[in-house]
Amino acid sequence: MRQGHQSWVFPSKPVILGHAAIGGPFEAQGPLAEDFDTLHGDLMIGQESWEKAEKVLLEEACSKAIEKAGLAKEQINFLLAGDLMNQIISASFSARTLAIPFLGIFGACSTAMEGLALAAQLVDSQAADCVLAATSSHNGAAEKQYRYPTEYGSQKPPTAQWTVTGAGAAVVGNKGKGLRIAGATIGRVVDMGMTDPFNMGAAMAPAALSTIETHFRDFQLPHDHYDLVVTGDLGKVGHAILSELLPKHNVMVPLQRYIDCGKLIYGDNPNVWSGGSGCGCVATVTYGHLLRRMSAGEWKRMLVVATGALLSPISYQQGESIPCVAHAVAIESE
Amino acid sequence: MRQGHQSWVFPSKPVILGHAAIGGPFEAQGPLAEDFDTLHGDLMIGQESWEKAEKVLLEEACSKAIEKAGLAKEQINFLLAGDLMNQIISASFSARTLAIPFLGIFGACSTAMEGLALAAQLVDSQAADCVLAATSSHNGAAEKQYRYPTEYGSQKPPTAQWTVTGAGAAVVGNKGKGLRIAGATIGRVVDMGMTDPFNMGAAMAPAALSTIETHFRDFQLPHDHYDLVVTGDLGKVGHAILSELLPKHNVMVPLQRYIDCGKLIYGDNPNVWSGGSGCGCVATVTYGHLLRRMSAGEWKRMLVVATGALLSPISYQQGESIPCVAHAVAIESE
Repeated sequence: MRQGHQSWVFPSKPVILGHAAIGGPFEAQGPLAEDFDTLHGDLMIGQESWEKAEKVLLEEACSKAIEKAGLAKEQINFLLAGDLMNQIISASFSARTLAIPFLGIFGACSTAMEGLALAAQLVDSQAADCVLAATSSHNGAAEKQYRYPTEYGSQKPPTAQWTVTGAGAAVVGNKGKGLRIAGATIGRVVDMGMTDPFNMGAAMAPAALSTIETHFRDFQLPHDHYDLVVTGDLGKVGHAILSELLPKHNVMVPLQRYIDCGKLIYGDNPNVWSGGSGCGCVATVTYGHLLRRMSAGEWKRMLVVATGALLSPISYQQGESIPCVAHAVAIESE
Repeated sequence: MRQGHQSWVFPSKPVILGHAAIGGPFEAQGPLAEDFDTLHGDLMIGQESWEKAEKVLLEEACSKAIEKAGLAKEQINFLLAGDLMNQIISASFSARTLAIPFLGIFGACSTAMEGLALAAQLVDSQAADCVLAATSSHNGAAEKQYRYPTEYGSQKPPTAQWTVTGAGAAVVGNKGKGLRIAGATIGRVVDMGMTDPFNMGAAMAPAALSTIETHFRDFQLPHDHYDLVVTGDLGKVGHAILSELLPKHNVMVPLQRYIDCGKLIYGDNPNVWSGGSGCGCVATVTYGHLLRRMSAGEWKRMLVVATGALLSPISYQQGESIPCVAHAVAIESE
């Protein structure tokens, strides 16, 4: 049910019954490698195009999450999925393979938490027993679609981010054992007039601030309520900006408890500039690393704030600035 | 709450408090012209690009629906919107203008009923007091993105459809006067292996059949329960196919009560081949023509089945067939 203007509290605390993260060869070299379920050694995943490879990643994440939940796909009521590809083809084609009733969603890199929030809402309101939320991205497919032909090898500024090749999925259910979803906050679109698609972190940080601020206000929570506040995917640049913005706006989240998925996934690797990005970044870091560590007892309460830059190549070419959005989901251990 | 495997029944019967349809110059020449709220004489709507024109159409539909609901935009909890543009920029940029917490959705031409179903679910489960569901398309923007450069003037086969320039929006609330939403069925992705993007009606008809069949089964309704069963947007070709498929599958919807938005919007105009299509087709026909006539008492119970072809130019170029989906919403007069 609603809490404040734009948040949901879930009295039944829907359970994350299964979660999975699939990655590519570059993710396999990163510091979070051991928290992936599967890591592929080949960027093509044995397919004939990057787009088809991304679809396989997403299908694998979905199948693995369902398997880990101990369910059959016929027991899942709805699939909530989206991705960065035009017309979210990775999600749509995966929905064809899985044959689960399908609600397509799009929030760029915020898609992961848009899906998880809606999944928990559907389960909490008894509109579903089980919902699968999933998203993906692929470095080759995204670069080709959003930027230059990959073969150019064009240089990028240090504020740019590296699109993650990976997919993450979670099965949310109304009973069973697992981490639980306590609430969610749906973001407004925030646009500070930034126009540089190679500096998404700076564009998205104000959207994250808006959603975090609203979340604490709607739930009337102390700012140190969460053991971990995680953004995805602001990268190093956006993380530094949000670390300044939070105290400036009197959101006194202890900064040592604030981390960003885009910073975590590749560690200090200088070849990724500001860090990771793409729907697959927050999805694999959350549904792989974070939920595993949380299940192991490393922390009890976590707020995941997925941020999305809602531009397209054509909106950029037509001189538009970059609208951004962030959705937050509160996850607790039992 | 859930009904059957993939349907929702809404015991509170959320109310359509306001609805609006905005069209372009070509729609103004069609037989439904008098049921639009605004008809623009200029395809550019005074903007410098088709994409920006589409955004204006969507913003106008949203503003008009909110105004007709007698509400201020600050009273709307969530905007559920999507469109055909890559990265649903029409919806995202409209969400920026409206500043309403935003959930981006995508189901190609099924987006209108995906949004209306989710809006009713959120209101019925008290996750929202008021939700705005909206979608749009623009002939110039869609042709440019999906097909050939418009200036080519390339010929099309008679199975092709004409993308509607228009936007539709509805405000769904938990109290007040208006038509009511009784239930919804979320579709599975159906793909019969069709690969011709100039024959969407044939590709989408089986998805509509699947959802209609499931809807009657989940709700255990007699097949003549609805005064009107409406698909959108199968066009003449798809309408004829579904009219054959329904009785073949023992779904005995009286065929004189079965109509299609793509057939209705341009009447017998031969220049649109099989009829209208695009997110704006089912949205303007439903939120303009159908709800107006229903409010005037012409019928009492209607099932709107919006169908979407979930292809992209790249999936087509890579030899994929066309996955399709359909979502159904049951609307009743008080």
